[in-house]
Amino acid sequence: MARVVVDVMLKPEILDPQGQAVQRALPRLGFEGIADVRQGKRFELEVEGPVDEAALARIHEMAETFLANTVIEDFTVRVDGEAAAAGADR
Amino acid sequence: MARVVVDVMLKPEILDPQGQAVQRALPRLGFEGIADVRQGKRFELEVEGPVDEAALARIHEMAETFLANTVIEDFTVRVDGEAAAAGADR
Repeated sequence: MARVVVDVMLKPEILDPQGQAVQRALPRLGFEGIADVRQGKRFELEVEGPVDEAALARIHEMAETFLANTVIEDFTVRVDGEAAAAGADR
Repeated sequence: MARVVVDVMLKPEILDPQGQAVQRALPRLGFEGIADVRQGKRFELEVEGPVDEAALARIHEMAETFLANTVIEDFTVRVDGEAAAAGADR
């Protein structure tokens, strides 16, 4: 079974309090040199059958309508193990 | 500035109610053929200076001690844009 990964991140212009909290905590914990942290969601989908263009198009639609809130979030869809992002909105 | 991505996912043997909720909702929304969904976290770190082996080792330590709960979660550290995972625990 093939695995498709959907990454959902807040758009760059949207404030990310979770990421900020992490970033501010790092120096206190002894980790310097991290200028910014953004926190988002990662979905791993186990797809039955072949992951062809039609399947990726369906998953793209699913991400757009259900997994991400495209008003405030960007998402990428890619087959796990492949380097390039497919059907990206970012 | 280089971007390093840390993906944190629940270990396979740990129940993932969020992912299950997504997976069960999909057929109702008209999306068939997804056998399993796991939901995790994705951190994007903007690193000041070069991302060399020492910097990646530090980020690996940071992920291990702070970003992930390694009792129930696995994580991967990779430089954004690179295909291969570096310093992975999974």
